[in-house]
Parts: sequence; C-alpha cells; structure tokens
Amino acid sequence: MAQNIYDTPAFFAGYSRLNRSVHGLDGAPEWPAIRAMLPDIQGRRVVDLGCGFGWFARWARSEGAAQVLGLDLSENMLARAKADTDDPAIRYAIADLETLELPDGAFDLAYSSLTFHYIVDFDRLTRMVFKSLAQGTWFVFTIEHPIYMASTQPGWLTRDDGQKIWPVDHYAVEGARTTDWLAPGVVKQHRTLGTTLNTLIKAGFAIRHVEEWHPTQAQIEQSPALAEEMERPMMLLVAAQR
Amino acid sequence: MAQNIYDTPAFFAGYSRLNRSVHGLDGAPEWPAIRAMLPDIQGRRVVDLGCGFGWFARWARSEGAAQVLGLDLSENMLARAKADTDDPAIRYAIADLETLELPDGAFDLAYSSLTFHYIVDFDRLTRMVFKSLAQGTWFVFTIEHPIYMASTQPGWLTRDDGQKIWPVDHYAVEGARTTDWLAPGVVKQHRTLGTTLNTLIKAGFAIRHVEEWHPTQAQIEQSPALAEEMERPMMLLVAAQR
Repeated sequence: MAQNIYDTPAFFAGYSRLNRSVHGLDGAPEWPAIRAMLPDIQGRRVVDLGCGFGWFARWARSEGAAQVLGLDLSENMLARAKADTDDPAIRYAIADLETLELPDGAFDLAYSSLTFHYIVDFDRLTRMVFKSLAQGTWFVFTIEHPIYMASTQPGWLTRDDGQKIWPVDHYAVEGARTTDWLAPGVVKQHRTLGTTLNTLIKAGFAIRHVEEWHPTQAQIEQSPALAEEMERPMMLLVAAQR
Repeated sequence: MAQNIYDTPAFFAGYSRLNRSVHGLDGAPEWPAIRAMLPDIQGRRVVDLGCGFGWFARWARSEGAAQVLGLDLSENMLARAKADTDDPAIRYAIADLETLELPDGAFDLAYSSLTFHYIVDFDRLTRMVFKSLAQGTWFVFTIEHPIYMASTQPGWLTRDDGQKIWPVDHYAVEGARTTDWLAPGVVKQHRTLGTTLNTLIKAGFAIRHVEEWHPTQAQIEQSPALAEEMERPMMLLVAAQR
C-alpha cells in the first residue's frame, strides 16, 4: 500500500493550512493553466484520483459534469470532502491508486492533481486509467516536476553572483526521494519527464499538451513570492487523450 | 539569417577535434539511443537538417535509404562532407533552417542532431518539416536539453556536502542564451521542453518517444567521465510521426 502521509496528524494539520486547502482551486496558482487544458465537462463522467477535500469534484459539478467519483487514500480528507457536499452526483471512496481497478469505459475524464508523484507503479495505473476511459476522452493530471524532485537535497541555493539557483542532481536515477515537507519522511517517487510521457504513449494515449507551469506576470504582481517559479519548473501539467 | 558559428575558425577547429567529429556516430554516446528510436529506413527518402560532416547521411545510405539530402549552414562542414563521399544518392546543400522550404511530401524521415537549439523560429521550421513528410513518416531529432541550456551561467557547482549539482535558473524565460563553447559568444535559443513538444503537437505530429538521454552502465564503465550525465539531462531525443 502507498504511504499515507496525509493521515499523519502533523502533515494533515500543515496541509489543511495551505492556501489551496483553505481557498480551494482559486488558491492554487496553477489552476487557471489546468482549467485551460480541460475539455468541456458538461454531461461528462469524471473520476478524480487523489481528490483531497473535494474542491475539484464540486467545481466539476458546477460546470455540468454528470457525475464525479472522488478517490483518495486519506480518511481525514474524505471525511471533510463528504461533509462539504450533499450533491448525490458526487461520490467519494477510499482507494489506493497502487491497486485501484475501475470499470472499463466508465469515465470521460480522469483528473488528478499533485498525486502521482507518490505512486510507485505509474505504468500499471496509466494502463488501468486508459481502460477506464471511453474512446476519445481525456486524462488530465499534474505532478511535481521531475526537476523539482530529482535532487537528493532539493532546495534553493545562491550562486556567487547572487542568482538564486535550483540544484539538479541524480536526475537519471529514478525511484524514491525522501523529503521533509510538512512532516518528516515524506516519500515521493522520481520519474524523468521522458518516462512519464512514454508511459502514457505506451498505454495508448495521445499526448495533447505538456506544460511546465510558471506564473503569469499578473500573478507575480499580485503574489511577488511566485517570481521564483520562473527560475525552475515546479509542476508538470499533462493532457492526454484516449 | 542564423548565426553561423561553425564557420568561425576557432569554433570549426575545436568542433573538428570532438570525438563525434573524429569518430562519427560511434563517437556520440547518445547514438545507440537515437538508433533505437529510428524507423526502418530501407528505401526511404531522408533529409538531415544540420548534417555537419555527413556521418548520418552515409550511415543512412549504408542502411538502405533510397536517397539522402544533407543540409547545413556551414560551408566548411559541407566541403568536408562532400569530399567524404562519392555516393550519387547523397546530395548536400547550404541551407538556413530559419528560412528553408522543402517540397511537400518529399521525405520519409526528417532527422536532425543537436541543431535546433540554434533556431529562433522552431514553430515555422516544425510546420515546414510536417508538410515535407509523407503521411505516416517520421521526424526524429536531438537538441540540447532545456535544463542544460536554461541557466544564465550553465556549469557544474559543488554543494557543501561534495555533491556535484547542475544549476537551473530562468527556466521559464525563453530566448537567447550566450555561452562560450569552443568559441566566445555562441548564441543558443532556450525553449522549455513543454514548448518544444507543444509546437510539434500543434503542427500535427504525434509524439512517439521522448528521451532525456543518459548513459548506460556499460558506457560509464568504458568512459567514466560520462557518469556526470546521470546528474542532469544534457540532451533531449524526440521521435514524432506525421
């Protein structure tokens, strides 16, 4: 079973205080870019892999999705997600994405935000998602960018000339990376960008858009701390079509 | 017109001494990975964009390509390429990839090695290559990886704990990068990996394989200096199909 860091008290408390937990999709600076990559979801059957507090599920319904299945490993997160809606077309369930099976052709959009970098067997998951989608429908997800994850000590450094730099090392060495983020010992799975894309292609997906997210000038003016996201890619956004 | 650094004496002299110039394809450690990505070229019409000394053109003919057109901006390189073959099915011509036009559907494989990172208008070039290929045929190319190119001062640094790191900065800021490699003032064009792939997709290509090249264990044992290429991606290899 995948590590369930979200249900350790320190991590859950810290995560609950993040902008994206308090303010939902609008608290995530990458959301406008994700939204621009999403297909029209009017009348669509949506599955959210790693749904957290259910912000995307509720947004999808507000945009006319026919039904949304939100899956997560964290009981704490699902408890809050369930408490935050009484929409009968939204269903939540505990699921481990390492072993999850979904019915064939049951969905028109598989969505996932910042979850798959915790998954060991992305190949199995991708093939399963492919089968669960109707022909012609979409798989849109975000992960931490492999350049953000690769280093054995990820963290800003300052060069002699004062330039802030992001260190890259061990990029070609795929596998576990242990970091202390909100709680000690969070285990993430580093894969190169090539591996992520080739896994999708091999499963049968057509790659439609690959975005190494960075803030817009307007976002930086509003939140100057975002300027550092011009220096190194932190998030990878992918849209693929069955 | 694109910068023609290859015809400055210092650059040409330095380039001519590189392993890949002296030993050809077998002197390029990424060649086995490129070869594995290439379609069968028996009977195919091939264009090599940035053909240099013509090593690939001669290899393609030895593998049964029907004809090869080698294009390069450098008169010095083409002079040597022409001197190195008397094969009438290989043709060489001076061309500036910023303005080149090729006949519609005239080729079955467009190939390019470590050239496009000098190109300002990759979008125009990609659309032109797409039209020049027969339906179902291939575009296979390598470029310097954007992580290798992005920094304002690309070069290894050593972290306090002794780990060699590759600095990343200005990744999201696309455009010219001036470096001193073989000669001062070599101008390269930084594009994010996402931009390169999305440009291909928008032109109509299907992405078939994306490889952030790294050496094999056997290559590192034979050439220990290659070990550093496990730390950061230096080259990007892409196979796309019309």
